[in-house]
Amino acid sequence: MRKSTITLADGRALIYFGDRPSRPDEYPDRRPLVPGHVESQARRDDLLNEWVVIASHRQDRTFQPALAECPLCPSTATSLTEIPAPEYDVVVFENRFPTLGAPADAPLADPPAAGLLEHHPAGGRCEVIVFSDNHDASFANLTKDQAAIVMAAWVDRSVELSGLPGVEQVYCFENRGPEIGATLTHPHGQIYAYPYVTPRTARMLRSVADYRAATGGNLFDDVVAAERKQSSRIVADGSHWVAFVPYAAHWPYEVHLYPHQRVPDLPALSDAARAEFVEIYLDLLRRFDRLFDTPAPYISAWHQAPVRGGRDDFAVHLELFTIRRASGKLKYLAGSESGMGAFANDVSPETAAQRLRDLA
Amino acid sequence: MRKSTITLADGRALIYFGDRPSRPDEYPDRRPLVPGHVESQARRDDLLNEWVVIASHRQDRTFQPALAECPLCPSTATSLTEIPAPEYDVVVFENRFPTLGAPADAPLADPPAAGLLEHHPAGGRCEVIVFSDNHDASFANLTKDQAAIVMAAWVDRSVELSGLPGVEQVYCFENRGPEIGATLTHPHGQIYAYPYVTPRTARMLRSVADYRAATGGNLFDDVVAAERKQSSRIVADGSHWVAFVPYAAHWPYEVHLYPHQRVPDLPALSDAARAEFVEIYLDLLRRFDRLFDTPAPYISAWHQAPVRGGRDDFAVHLELFTIRRASGKLKYLAGSESGMGAFANDVSPETAAQRLRDLA
Repeated sequence: MRKSTITLADGRALIYFGDRPSRPDEYPDRRPLVPGHVESQARRDDLLNEWVVIASHRQDRTFQPALAECPLCPSTATSLTEIPAPEYDVVVFENRFPTLGAPADAPLADPPAAGLLEHHPAGGRCEVIVFSDNHDASFANLTKDQAAIVMAAWVDRSVELSGLPGVEQVYCFENRGPEIGATLTHPHGQIYAYPYVTPRTARMLRSVADYRAATGGNLFDDVVAAERKQSSRIVADGSHWVAFVPYAAHWPYEVHLYPHQRVPDLPALSDAARAEFVEIYLDLLRRFDRLFDTPAPYISAWHQAPVRGGRDDFAVHLELFTIRRASGKLKYLAGSESGMGAFANDVSPETAAQRLRDLA
Repeated sequence: MRKSTITLADGRALIYFGDRPSRPDEYPDRRPLVPGHVESQARRDDLLNEWVVIASHRQDRTFQPALAECPLCPSTATSLTEIPAPEYDVVVFENRFPTLGAPADAPLADPPAAGLLEHHPAGGRCEVIVFSDNHDASFANLTKDQAAIVMAAWVDRSVELSGLPGVEQVYCFENRGPEIGATLTHPHGQIYAYPYVTPRTARMLRSVADYRAATGGNLFDDVVAAERKQSSRIVADGSHWVAFVPYAAHWPYEVHLYPHQRVPDLPALSDAARAEFVEIYLDLLRRFDRLFDTPAPYISAWHQAPVRGGRDDFAVHLELFTIRRASGKLKYLAGSESGMGAFANDVSPETAAQRLRDLA
């Protein structure tokens, strides 16, 4: 996979993956950008024992020079976007208004230091990954070859960001649809390199450790085996991957994809597993698009092991879910979910799996 | 406080709090309602170690007889609502389409039994609390006397629901605004009696226990003391309550209210504390209404100790927050929050507190 890195006018890195453009250096960033500043703090919520990022510098966004109409389209003679080249396959660049990335000198302490109300600069990095130079494309209608370039970019970024000082976990994800808050329709995702292990991953690691201590087994392996045994929620089962609606799905339509061979992260996947993932994932996304009268808004989330700790027992997997429960009806995170973390789901996982299978 | 219970046509209980109607028995439910059924399951998510309620019977809602235009308004000669009387102060009734309330024989095991993919009938109860018979009122514009009746109803329901078999935690809350998914504009809240300790409360209890073991102190007491000492995020400080934007606020505008004297739940509050709560809370809600060009959507959440366990160290408190970060702009729970539980907040807690103080 060809990879070419350039530097944007304000100092941010931009990386082209794939064959286009053939001569990236011929397309410098011609915008008069001023380097941004990131003042994010990671503050510890002592009661929930988790970090929250306070990113108040992002409130200044409107004072920056206006962007082109779609900042993710290729640049043209008259429109200078985030991407200087006139065409590209897949592009990754540092977010211009990142949540993470304050100058940080040390990784965050976890468990916390002695004091309450503790904070640190929120280091790490936020990147944008653009899946296609076609503004009207979506991940679901990429070709396999194009999706394979995205997979290669996810792997590359996971390796590289894991090596940055202070980064504890790399998260590749996509928010699709205005219902999720995605303001740009150009097909793209994001990659966060967190300076801490995320709360959800921390909880999974605790469950996995407890299960190891109690049974000697691996919780991920045993949950996937139990799902395969019950079989009623399996949506797809390939040579390298299984996709199922989880037994205790939190969302109306939710699918988890696990490789048969447990590995901690994307870089550890075999070439064959990466290739089959693309096929199964594209098929799944197309089914999601057919669930309702219009394509479903969704969140697609790669769960990877932290950079340090828990790697022997973690299972890389993808969680794909929509917040839409019926045409025109959303699942809101209201008082029970947002207040107490207590989820209720009106669509039974077995029914959801049956519908997804039937949409073939 | 006067309290009168009647039985609705389908067998559900309805309770009038306050002086109106003076003769509740004169207003029987004249609707031809068929008793509903609740088939909710609580399923354990083994990786996150939490229960999710699968309430697929709620998908049938459209097959039920249509309700009056606003089911929470008083009934009239031509419109039969959920509330048979022609006027009322505060009403509580069992939700007609509840998430919780399947016939259950035993409380849920926590920690889980041996097996994976475990489920139980989701017992418990879901109630609706109507704050006023005025369709166009809101909590913020209730009188103090009216709000005091609501407080008395919360206390009554906390006591009574805690005594039901299998109930582990009682949660009084309000979802206000269509942005939160509230479909009825008539001022009302909800009361959930969960058959398990909610995930967020479980996490707080773990933090509190760890802190007790490490320091010998109470985490709630020390966090509140630290907030008072820093003082920059205090919004109101009374004889019995303190209100502050928490140091690691998850939401753009978020206020926590704690009584000075720590008690586990609403029934344990003194009369003086209950009375002052009403004043401070009404003032806060009115400030929330003035934050933006239109009244802020909000979630208001009473955190109470579980029925069993953790009661000595828990601090009853209210968490009030809006998902709106600026006029016309919402904070979405997208990939970072919904996928990883990792919150970012663009409004600094100190700025939020200053704005709330200035809105006096």
